[in-house]
Amino acid sequence: MQNLVTAAILIIGDEILSGRTLDTNVQTIAKMLGERGIQVQEVRVVPDVIETIVDTVNALRKKFTYVFSTGGIGPTHDDKTAEAMAKAFGTKLERNAEAWRRLVVHYAGEENINAGRAKMADIPVGAALIDNPVSTAPGFILENVHVMAGVPKIMAAMLEGVLPKLQGGAVIHSRSVSADVPESVIAGGLAAIEAKYAGITVGSYPKFTPNQQPHTTIVVRGADEAAVEAAIREVGTLMQGAGAVPQY
Amino acid sequence: MQNLVTAAILIIGDEILSGRTLDTNVQTIAKMLGERGIQVQEVRVVPDVIETIVDTVNALRKKFTYVFSTGGIGPTHDDKTAEAMAKAFGTKLERNAEAWRRLVVHYAGEENINAGRAKMADIPVGAALIDNPVSTAPGFILENVHVMAGVPKIMAAMLEGVLPKLQGGAVIHSRSVSADVPESVIAGGLAAIEAKYAGITVGSYPKFTPNQQPHTTIVVRGADEAAVEAAIREVGTLMQGAGAVPQY
Repeated sequence: MQNLVTAAILIIGDEILSGRTLDTNVQTIAKMLGERGIQVQEVRVVPDVIETIVDTVNALRKKFTYVFSTGGIGPTHDDKTAEAMAKAFGTKLERNAEAWRRLVVHYAGEENINAGRAKMADIPVGAALIDNPVSTAPGFILENVHVMAGVPKIMAAMLEGVLPKLQGGAVIHSRSVSADVPESVIAGGLAAIEAKYAGITVGSYPKFTPNQQPHTTIVVRGADEAAVEAAIREVGTLMQGAGAVPQY
Repeated sequence: MQNLVTAAILIIGDEILSGRTLDTNVQTIAKMLGERGIQVQEVRVVPDVIETIVDTVNALRKKFTYVFSTGGIGPTHDDKTAEAMAKAFGTKLERNAEAWRRLVVHYAGEENINAGRAKMADIPVGAALIDNPVSTAPGFILENVHVMAGVPKIMAAMLEGVLPKLQGGAVIHSRSVSADVPESVIAGGLAAIEAKYAGITVGSYPKFTPNQQPHTTIVVRGADEAAVEAAIREVGTLMQGAGAVPQY
């Protein structure tokens, strides 16, 4: 594919691995990047352990155009991402003057900045700040790695600010069609449709309806909008041929 | 920690990476394994690409006691997990007689088994089957790797059947307490509590309430239930000291 711009997402947080918290940041980031033509190709979730974060970010940043991390940049002892990112890039944390200035304004004076809050101004040397319009404490960028907060609302606001600065790629068009049909009935036809159109992918996603009927959603994706449209219509025809009513 | 049993989760599917689908299998698996004392230490999400699946499962199966994969074992052309797993283990797919027998019963006769359905009986040589009480087509086990369906309801039923056969570890007890207080206010006290009790971890999870107030949930985890209980009470006292009302 021409102009392929890729990304990995690195979710940092024990609470996701324990099952306590359902991650929604992957979906939000993937959708927002997709609209800019940036394809997420890998996600990793790791614990709040410095060596693990270091190894993971160093593996991902070499493999993909961009890396986006979430989590571990808050004021508490279990927030270890800034320290890990500094280590991954062979640099150190420093009290960032601009981050400090913002926190002093936010907390209405230096006298209200305890050690935990001060920690949020400790940013790796050489990093650029990512604005946090929700709660002030910034994220940061080191080369192709974007380090963001884990709270979904803050993360989304940070990414919104970063997006216009990213190199966009070919936008992938996506069309879907669904019907009450088991995917196994139309499997052969789907493979034929994918083979017919160069550069498109045909994904098949089965589920059960609330009344336990098999239901399948087919998603056609590709950079060529006309090919995507033609292919999804063929899928609909295939579903009709199986006696189902396709819903686009 | 004594008797540490670890796991990685491997989510296979373009639909998660594109943001089309919100993954919920990680949370379900993490909770179910946690109750058996098996700690999920890493999650990876990869696309339906055979080489990527091979490399990822080979990395994970060496690092963790168990690997649990979801997705890519259905009847359509984009289901590539069985082929990838066979390749990762240096073996081949074969038409599994028991899987075939089950599918013939499920579809009420061989004459109803098209190529897509037949594909679901192609299992790596040497694998043990995982029962699928929802829709028949089985998952499978190769050494420490458990290959399950991606549909959440089927995945949960498969894991339920597998769980009693897994080696359990030390169960981690977890207690939480929440209050309308910014985590930065109690950060210092939290670090002191974690330092006081050996073998416990104190996680701090901030969010905003619907009326935009900062709210923090503290989760204490550890194998020693008495230490977990004592620590969570100290966190509650810390919150009260900050003028907040702790909710256990």
